[in-house]
Amino acid sequence: MIENIAVVGATGAVGSIVLELLEERNFPFKSIKFLASKRSAGKSLTFKGELHVIEELSPNAFQDIDLVIASTPDEVSLEFTPWAVERGAIVIDESGAHRMMEHVPLVVPEVNPEAIENHQGIIASPNCSTTQMVVAMKPIYDAVGISRVVVSTYQAPSGAGAAGEQELFDGTQSHMEGKSFDYQAFAHPIAFNLIPQIGSEKFEGYTSEEMKMVFETRKIFGDETIQICPTCVRVPVVNCHSESILLETKSALEVDAARELFRNFEGITLQDDLASQSYPMPIDANKKDDVFVGRLRKDISGPNGLAFWCVSDNLRKGAATNAVQIAELLVNRNATCGT
Amino acid sequence: MIENIAVVGATGAVGSIVLELLEERNFPFKSIKFLASKRSAGKSLTFKGELHVIEELSPNAFQDIDLVIASTPDEVSLEFTPWAVERGAIVIDESGAHRMMEHVPLVVPEVNPEAIENHQGIIASPNCSTTQMVVAMKPIYDAVGISRVVVSTYQAPSGAGAAGEQELFDGTQSHMEGKSFDYQAFAHPIAFNLIPQIGSEKFEGYTSEEMKMVFETRKIFGDETIQICPTCVRVPVVNCHSESILLETKSALEVDAARELFRNFEGITLQDDLASQSYPMPIDANKKDDVFVGRLRKDISGPNGLAFWCVSDNLRKGAATNAVQIAELLVNRNATCGT
Repeated sequence: MIENIAVVGATGAVGSIVLELLEERNFPFKSIKFLASKRSAGKSLTFKGELHVIEELSPNAFQDIDLVIASTPDEVSLEFTPWAVERGAIVIDESGAHRMMEHVPLVVPEVNPEAIENHQGIIASPNCSTTQMVVAMKPIYDAVGISRVVVSTYQAPSGAGAAGEQELFDGTQSHMEGKSFDYQAFAHPIAFNLIPQIGSEKFEGYTSEEMKMVFETRKIFGDETIQICPTCVRVPVVNCHSESILLETKSALEVDAARELFRNFEGITLQDDLASQSYPMPIDANKKDDVFVGRLRKDISGPNGLAFWCVSDNLRKGAATNAVQIAELLVNRNATCGT
Repeated sequence: MIENIAVVGATGAVGSIVLELLEERNFPFKSIKFLASKRSAGKSLTFKGELHVIEELSPNAFQDIDLVIASTPDEVSLEFTPWAVERGAIVIDESGAHRMMEHVPLVVPEVNPEAIENHQGIIASPNCSTTQMVVAMKPIYDAVGISRVVVSTYQAPSGAGAAGEQELFDGTQSHMEGKSFDYQAFAHPIAFNLIPQIGSEKFEGYTSEEMKMVFETRKIFGDETIQICPTCVRVPVVNCHSESILLETKSALEVDAARELFRNFEGITLQDDLASQSYPMPIDANKKDDVFVGRLRKDISGPNGLAFWCVSDNLRKGAATNAVQIAELLVNRNATCGT
């Protein structure tokens, strides 16, 4: 039974949305506690109308905890996760620390819910740019198979945490006043600019963010044959990642048939009416849980291709929502086991 | 001989850069005049330190004119161009009015300078998103051939004229102050947002801007076999268009060899050092004439592919610079003919 839960990193950009979602979705629990590193420990937060003091992360903080939802930097995750797992908790980890470890399921509930069965205490939630892409790929993959993906991203500064979002505003304000601004979260100015690098150099000129899209996508589909060419770019929007995606399918799929697949897929909202200037945009997807798909059209450069535009709230479906959905999968599985 | 020149639309976002370039590059002429529609006629402008009164566009305004450089809306171009051509002038037209007409050469001097020979009075300059892409394609095309292009653009509001640029600033200011803003140049807010539509619906879900990239590229290379899948997106940067480009080549080309081709190509500046966080960005390409290429890497999703990132000032190489370079081609050809 999942009765006692802990939220780690509850004061961060993603963690605070986890709290909202647990409340909104009426997630079942008997007790809840909030953990953070020394810096935030001792502060308090309000959850379901009650004030809670944030405890410092320590091995004993996980005593009697059944489920942990964690949004922390990789190095924090690597430290606390063993404490929780040794005490019998299941950790849903939003960091990148465990995603590619062989014994750790990497789960997007719309795509590979069955993968949770094989967990050994840790279930990882993918990188934000991967999550929305695999949701959009799923109905097409199931219908006709996908051999190749070419994707260019348009990623919000909020993906770099609350500091990233704040720097976009402060940098923009400075720019408008003709003043210079000293960016900390980004290597270059992001106000009115684009930065074609997210993460560090990883593999033959590809960045770590780009290679996450390759490796995580293959792991989630359990299909090492999917070929992916990603380009990840930071853009000055407040929130939500957008992706220009070209899928090459294993067999032909008419655009109208693809449109119906998207329309009927749980977790995707189709917004696809170019004549009415209706398509997904960051300002509209903000604070929504779905993955939005539009600008759907036949690839006019190759035989079996589909091009489309995909937008999702990177802090929600790209992080917090996906983690809470994994937690719900676990609860529902336990409920089923118990009957 | 090219002696008497006229600049049409000299007060617009592109026209004013044409003037700067004619001055900077010391373009040779005996006389120069400035023409505009009724709205701007009678106003004055300073060129090479002298005040000039702008004349209204009329058939007789082109009497004795040898060369016209024009940046106007399509419908204005269609009206005045016959007046100029009938009077013996060569018109370099930056509008989209004549680009795809069979008897009109569509010219990017780095790519197809020889095409000017066949003009019948009008030479067209391509759409901004096309121009920088074909320059970047050229050295690769010449070396190994190009069969396919997948391109996603990140286009500045300045591509929608001076009003577009102003609306980005005013919309941003309003957003920062928590006020709403009534956009005229865009169908949706552009401040802190992305608009995945440029132009109107043109062909099977592709926009007019996207189909320009297809048709114009084929015409410029004189190669109808090049397959292109474009996605054009407006992004909130002040100026300069960026493009995430994947080229599939007819035969294999090592990344290092491609890098050398870019490095040695006149008109391209290679800025490609990911480890040092050096790559093209809109804020750096602003007010420069070159096409900037970086993030060069092998396509890891297919056999003969190259992925890269390309940035250029859409008002300069994407418009004004390309037009002035065409004018220089004409002048140099005449100089050669005369010797």
